[in-house]
Amino acid sequence: MKIGIIGSGALGLYYGAMLQRSGQDINFLLRRDYQAIRQQGLQIYSVNGDFHLPQVAGYQTAQEIGSVDLVIVGLKTISNHHLIDLVSPLLGAETAILTLQNGLGNEELLAEAFGPERVLGGIAFLCSNRGEPGTVHHLGEGKIRLGEFSGGLSQRIHDLAAMFQAAGVPCTAVSDLRRARWEKLVWNIPFNGLCALLENDVTDLLNHPPSKKLARDLMLEVIAGANVQQLEEPIDGAEFSQQIIHFTENMDHYQPSMMIDRAAGRPLELGAIYAIPLQRAKAAGVSMPQVEMLHALLDFGEGQETVNRFPIPGK
Amino acid sequence: MKIGIIGSGALGLYYGAMLQRSGQDINFLLRRDYQAIRQQGLQIYSVNGDFHLPQVAGYQTAQEIGSVDLVIVGLKTISNHHLIDLVSPLLGAETAILTLQNGLGNEELLAEAFGPERVLGGIAFLCSNRGEPGTVHHLGEGKIRLGEFSGGLSQRIHDLAAMFQAAGVPCTAVSDLRRARWEKLVWNIPFNGLCALLENDVTDLLNHPPSKKLARDLMLEVIAGANVQQLEEPIDGAEFSQQIIHFTENMDHYQPSMMIDRAAGRPLELGAIYAIPLQRAKAAGVSMPQVEMLHALLDFGEGQETVNRFPIPGK
Repeated sequence: MKIGIIGSGALGLYYGAMLQRSGQDINFLLRRDYQAIRQQGLQIYSVNGDFHLPQVAGYQTAQEIGSVDLVIVGLKTISNHHLIDLVSPLLGAETAILTLQNGLGNEELLAEAFGPERVLGGIAFLCSNRGEPGTVHHLGEGKIRLGEFSGGLSQRIHDLAAMFQAAGVPCTAVSDLRRARWEKLVWNIPFNGLCALLENDVTDLLNHPPSKKLARDLMLEVIAGANVQQLEEPIDGAEFSQQIIHFTENMDHYQPSMMIDRAAGRPLELGAIYAIPLQRAKAAGVSMPQVEMLHALLDFGEGQETVNRFPIPGK
Repeated sequence: MKIGIIGSGALGLYYGAMLQRSGQDINFLLRRDYQAIRQQGLQIYSVNGDFHLPQVAGYQTAQEIGSVDLVIVGLKTISNHHLIDLVSPLLGAETAILTLQNGLGNEELLAEAFGPERVLGGIAFLCSNRGEPGTVHHLGEGKIRLGEFSGGLSQRIHDLAAMFQAAGVPCTAVSDLRRARWEKLVWNIPFNGLCALLENDVTDLLNHPPSKKLARDLMLEVIAGANVQQLEEPIDGAEFSQQIIHFTENMDHYQPSMMIDRAAGRPLELGAIYAIPLQRAKAAGVSMPQVEMLHALLDFGEGQETVNRFPIPGK
């Protein structure tokens, strides 16, 4: 299958590399890593074993890639104002578009521009980071949950799940993509935000009882917001929040992507992970006051210079 | 009147100096500033005019001061485990105790140890900071609202208010000390906490619309908590929060004490300003979820080393 990867960061490069290794025809749109990958290929350092791809089809424009069978979108949502222009040149009559981006609003953006029938979404549970240009560090996890934007289990979704499986990527098809997206938010909203704000990892956070309680309270708000989104079946707040806490307790000092982005001075994905979920919950009559507070606190740091170790009057 | 000052920080030194200049017999319990004040006296740099007191009665132990007519307590509440031992040696049969400390719980501590009839409370609106040993910077404000712990307007309260007035300190007597304490919390809870957490001053905070909304939402929670505390009359949420916002908009880049303490690595007064108000509201059936969240976020930073500019895996 000819596949185009739009947004070749740690996620796009990792999944693209896994698929190419399994025999798929992968075409990366590259920016930062273009020169390095042309010269040295693509190196994956993975907990499941390192590997190197010496020949990689990398391009600097989407036009050079031309039409593909499948577009995989790994773009940061903060760059979504470029999304339509980047995807358009890859579309033939039958091209499907799979967005693996974070949060809410991405499928809708693609569906409005290109028609809902083209659009698929996937929730990636991947711990990976970019290293030097041309290298990716895969630290753990990697599974994907795939679904149709329009809902239901299609043949296409089963085929794509099988393709990922064949490439060594655990992948399941889900009939309720919306529920899967909200389930992921139950993790992302507390842990991405609190770790970015407090500059500490998930383990440090959960070792502090008031923060652990806060993380759980945030989860319960998100689950209440989720359960008014016409899901196929509701999420059980007590049970699911407990599962997520337990799952996160087993992540040894994991630093969520938003914490790393904040530390590196990069903009945060606040729209997809906070603003749009808040809007959707509010539109359905549910307020999430602690989520709203976390959003405001994170937003304060965006584009704002913190007065580091500010002068103390009279000192 | 013979007065002992326990807790001679920026607040205790400032009010003590004002009272001494007006002719009162002031006795300071000193620690950090003892040597400097013995050698050079006490220097106040004030927006209302600088002044110097060459002769200051400073002591290293409360025992040396002996019994007084009035104890004024300016101790940080984080040192309240020393409060009873420090105040005891100053008590004669008729000695009154006036606590000007922050937040809730201070009068109760004194009343339990020494009897409620001795205890008075004052809410100080003072912008001051310690400078070099023996110096205090008075940046603005300074007024005090005084009340009886047991409520009502006594002759003693009127006399003390007149004493402060005569010393150039604007002072009013209030019949409902509890209400005055909660009114102050309506400012302290949002602005001390948010400025400490975000490391930015009140002006930067209010210039960011989501933070301004958050500050107001926090105020409304605190007012709801206040209004179940058997106040003489309830606080009007919409009107009072608007007044506080307006009042704070006129503070030009003011840095609350908690922000300065956090920047200097000093412990924060979280018990008096957050934990006890949260307990009291909860005991009366009112939850304050955003206040609780702010408390948890601030508590996380206490005694916790933040991983400053933490290493990014793979970088």
